[in-house]
Amino acid sequence: MREVYQEQLGVLADELASMSTMVGTAMERATKALLEADLSLAEQVLDEDVQVDEARARVEEHAFGLLALQAPVAGDLRTVISAIHAAEDLERMGDLALHVAKTARRRHPNAVLPQDVQPYFAEMGRIAVKLAGRVRTVIRTQDVEAARGLEEDDDEMDDLHRHLFTVLMSPEWSHGVAAAVDVTLLGRFYERFADHAVSVARRVVFVVTGKMPTG
Amino acid sequence: MREVYQEQLGVLADELASMSTMVGTAMERATKALLEADLSLAEQVLDEDVQVDEARARVEEHAFGLLALQAPVAGDLRTVISAIHAAEDLERMGDLALHVAKTARRRHPNAVLPQDVQPYFAEMGRIAVKLAGRVRTVIRTQDVEAARGLEEDDDEMDDLHRHLFTVLMSPEWSHGVAAAVDVTLLGRFYERFADHAVSVARRVVFVVTGKMPTG
Repeated sequence: MREVYQEQLGVLADELASMSTMVGTAMERATKALLEADLSLAEQVLDEDVQVDEARARVEEHAFGLLALQAPVAGDLRTVISAIHAAEDLERMGDLALHVAKTARRRHPNAVLPQDVQPYFAEMGRIAVKLAGRVRTVIRTQDVEAARGLEEDDDEMDDLHRHLFTVLMSPEWSHGVAAAVDVTLLGRFYERFADHAVSVARRVVFVVTGKMPTG
Repeated sequence: MREVYQEQLGVLADELASMSTMVGTAMERATKALLEADLSLAEQVLDEDVQVDEARARVEEHAFGLLALQAPVAGDLRTVISAIHAAEDLERMGDLALHVAKTARRRHPNAVLPQDVQPYFAEMGRIAVKLAGRVRTVIRTQDVEAARGLEEDDDEMDDLHRHLFTVLMSPEWSHGVAAAVDVTLLGRFYERFADHAVSVARRVVFVVTGKMPTG
């Protein structure tokens, strides 16, 4: 019984790791679509989001099966519930990548971003993809230190996001209101993507240590 | 055993209903703080958000207790897991009210909103508070029709949100980029608040019917 249970938990972790890969790839493509006004790449992200939603549904079904058949307690129960939460965060990360791709598509063939903010988004995209990769590692290894490492990347994202706002608000901003609105929302999508990545990592810490990290 | 279990489920519903009240009140006050540049009201929302977070922690603890001690299956299991999800949505609604209050505080003693978009936010605030009230009713009554009613309010919110964007993007916008950035983010906070309210209602439908509504 116990062995079967461990095996099933392993399948759950596999599914979550695979979701991390999916949303990392989605954000990588969405960022490229945004920076290069690449319509087909944007549409690929749009088409493939359903796979993230399906994976999330599978995690939830699987977790339900585990809860109903195995009635886990204590740490095992915590693991299964955390997996359900993590799948929700990961699905939301996929949605945020989708929002980026939709913005790129909406403005096509025009570029969404004025040239002077492009480096910010290249960098925010890079950090987002790195965070998705780290989430995968943390799920695989359950390494609490690695999970804490995500907070640093998230701080970096927050710094970029804050700085982006000073650029937007500066009197030198010459790209008008419409571009500012797009940049504001896009900035928020990347920032939220990072928040959800941190949230998954914190759940892993919770599973391993029994304590939810604060901060 | 069964009776105790039903009683505990009732406590869980009470806690969720009370969270709905809290986040509705928070959004009502945050909107008033925003529209009237009322600093003390904004600070009240900021101070009281911790109560929403605590309520959410209680729901989760309570749900864990139920899962560990009662090992519910089928519909009962679904109810408990949905309660955990609903608490997460409600906590997020509280955070969004908090973001509105923070924006009001940041710009104090200035008003955040140019006069011509104030009616939009008065209306979006009204719908948000109405949605929180409806969520409470749906949790209390488990009325599937009432739950579907939330989708209409959400459509109204989306319409307002879309229209707000046409105002922002119009060449007549004369309030500059900084105000546009604030309005963009604020609009998104209200829209997300409504999305989370709908999500709670959908979970109730799922609990009652066994099917997750699509849309």
